[in-house]
Amino acid sequence: MSAYELLTVDNVPGYLASRPALAAFANPVSVREIGDGNMNTVFAVEVEGGPGVVLKQSMPYVRVDPAWPITPDRNRIEAAVLAEHGRVAPGLVPALLDVDHDRHVLALEDLSDHRVWRGLLNEGVRTDGVAADLGRYVAKVAFGTSVFGLGNYRHKAALAAAVNPELCEITEDLVFTEPYIEHEHNKILPATKADVAAYVGDPEVRTAIGLAKLAFMTRAEALIHGDLHTGSVLVKPGSTRAFDVEFAFYGPVGFDLGALWGNYVLAAARGFVQGDDAHARWVLGLAEETWAAFETEFRALWPDRVDPRIYGDGVLEGYLATVRRDAAVFGAAKAARRVIGFARVSDIETLPEVERAVAIRRSLRAARHLLTAEPGRELFDRVGDLLS
Amino acid sequence: MSAYELLTVDNVPGYLASRPALAAFANPVSVREIGDGNMNTVFAVEVEGGPGVVLKQSMPYVRVDPAWPITPDRNRIEAAVLAEHGRVAPGLVPALLDVDHDRHVLALEDLSDHRVWRGLLNEGVRTDGVAADLGRYVAKVAFGTSVFGLGNYRHKAALAAAVNPELCEITEDLVFTEPYIEHEHNKILPATKADVAAYVGDPEVRTAIGLAKLAFMTRAEALIHGDLHTGSVLVKPGSTRAFDVEFAFYGPVGFDLGALWGNYVLAAARGFVQGDDAHARWVLGLAEETWAAFETEFRALWPDRVDPRIYGDGVLEGYLATVRRDAAVFGAAKAARRVIGFARVSDIETLPEVERAVAIRRSLRAARHLLTAEPGRELFDRVGDLLS
Repeated sequence: MSAYELLTVDNVPGYLASRPALAAFANPVSVREIGDGNMNTVFAVEVEGGPGVVLKQSMPYVRVDPAWPITPDRNRIEAAVLAEHGRVAPGLVPALLDVDHDRHVLALEDLSDHRVWRGLLNEGVRTDGVAADLGRYVAKVAFGTSVFGLGNYRHKAALAAAVNPELCEITEDLVFTEPYIEHEHNKILPATKADVAAYVGDPEVRTAIGLAKLAFMTRAEALIHGDLHTGSVLVKPGSTRAFDVEFAFYGPVGFDLGALWGNYVLAAARGFVQGDDAHARWVLGLAEETWAAFETEFRALWPDRVDPRIYGDGVLEGYLATVRRDAAVFGAAKAARRVIGFARVSDIETLPEVERAVAIRRSLRAARHLLTAEPGRELFDRVGDLLS
Repeated sequence: MSAYELLTVDNVPGYLASRPALAAFANPVSVREIGDGNMNTVFAVEVEGGPGVVLKQSMPYVRVDPAWPITPDRNRIEAAVLAEHGRVAPGLVPALLDVDHDRHVLALEDLSDHRVWRGLLNEGVRTDGVAADLGRYVAKVAFGTSVFGLGNYRHKAALAAAVNPELCEITEDLVFTEPYIEHEHNKILPATKADVAAYVGDPEVRTAIGLAKLAFMTRAEALIHGDLHTGSVLVKPGSTRAFDVEFAFYGPVGFDLGALWGNYVLAAARGFVQGDDAHARWVLGLAEETWAAFETEFRALWPDRVDPRIYGDGVLEGYLATVRRDAAVFGAAKAARRVIGFARVSDIETLPEVERAVAIRRSLRAARHLLTAEPGRELFDRVGDLLS
């Protein structure tokens, strides 16, 4: 139940006609519901002879579980974040065409010629440049929305405006908590029961995850994406867009890099158990490709920091080292939650059960390594050993 | 100039009569202006046969420099913080009797039988229990206003409500920036010119201070006091009150402990150059006394954390280790700024110039040690060597 009218395939044309900014789309050739996320409904609108538009509506509950109430205000947050990320990282998030605060609808540029990156990776497609685009995206956001890019006043105002308790709680629970306790959300194969128990029972793992959760909840570094897995990325050759930014808040930059790293681990685990070692190793190589692009872009932006007086080059090196360490820890957390807890990924779930168990076992070993090792340049070599 | 009426010795009685909560004080025996802080005017009101009241008014500028505009809203922040600190650390901050948002006046309990701690330390008085009281105060605030004490929703709401850009900027500039650049606020004795140059020119120092500033600006751990030097503490035997909380915001817990540590260093430096080694060593011993009380209190509160699911005892140990490391770095920053930059302290400034130069030189060496050493249990033994 909601107090505002929900969009349907049938009422979308009328809705488009009612919005001045969307009048060009008011006579659609087709309207399809395309949402496969957990949270919202999404409609793709096609028009004659030109790009269409995408409408994304938030209900006051989780789409896949109407008994789970959640603020439709996530839509306002998403609009604000898209605008800000579009400002600092133009072309790397979908363009925002309209915002309807009454019915909690965003109108976004038509990206129907793009595909979700996870699907391509699952199919064994090598997508040139995407990993580097995302490293640049994280760097531009990390710099542009931080004290370096905004200065002290704007950073403080932005972080206060961007608190996002309900969506953050989902991450706090699903990534950092439920996999590590007895919880009805957890689904564990008989064949991996011992592996999961060894991972979640390891005191070193539990402490690292607990400290990572504390960092997630207290380190207001930048307006991070907050859910940057490979299913939150749309790609076509020459174009990369990070979407679904509704989890954004002021948090640690390493969390976005870690989300990518953790999902590369899962994609590589899939490749290895399928016997496609070449693809798996290529996927794993994306981790350093993303990192290198992040680091290069951040270093390129560094001379433009608002207040360089005490933020010298030693601070830059210290900052980058911390982000890399954080990325490894968060990457582990993001990989592990997908093979223990709620909201699984197709990389693993579409594998036959025997292969799935092997991929899960190896992913947990890789996660443990990311949690506990020094994050030097050989980090993913060892991850590759553990996954293959 | 201000748009609201400023208090004077003459109009305070009328003001008291106009405030229902303060009617008991409307016929004062005496009204004295007692403010010696940099920011506000403060009046002590005495009444017949009972405790009086203190009125603290914020002007829309800095009291000692009316050309320096600053929000009188700091008064609202101070009231909110006193209420919250009073809730989590009762008896360790002044009781709040009235808040007048129109004229930016707080009414506080009469502490005229207390003395400012710095003055007592300067006189060589041993004040039993104060250092431990303050360690407990920091622990109660660190726990009670954090995710551990408030849980996720209340922590996020509290941190958004407590952003304090103008007062934070003063710290960002005066503690973390101006001492490290050429700035008109800096006052450097001819005899310490080389020492200051060596300290601020040391790349290791500059990087540590820059990273400390970044931590100060991004780590939203707890509603810290924000200016907890020995001049922000009122004491009488058996009673300790931290006051002047207008710099409070969500920041790193180690900053409050560091403020105490840095000021113990300065008080000890004074003792040593005065030849009172016994007092100096006693003062330096306060550092571990404050720490031990902090740690003991925090451990005692730990079982009551809102969400213990992944915050196990390993997290507690990791958290305490981080706070201690932070305290050392912030302590260095707080000591150094008082002997280089704006807003000096009587511990050092009342020394004859020759002794002052020696105390400054030694304080900077101690600061460098705090910035760069492992903060183990022997930390202040070495600081004592460097100060004596």
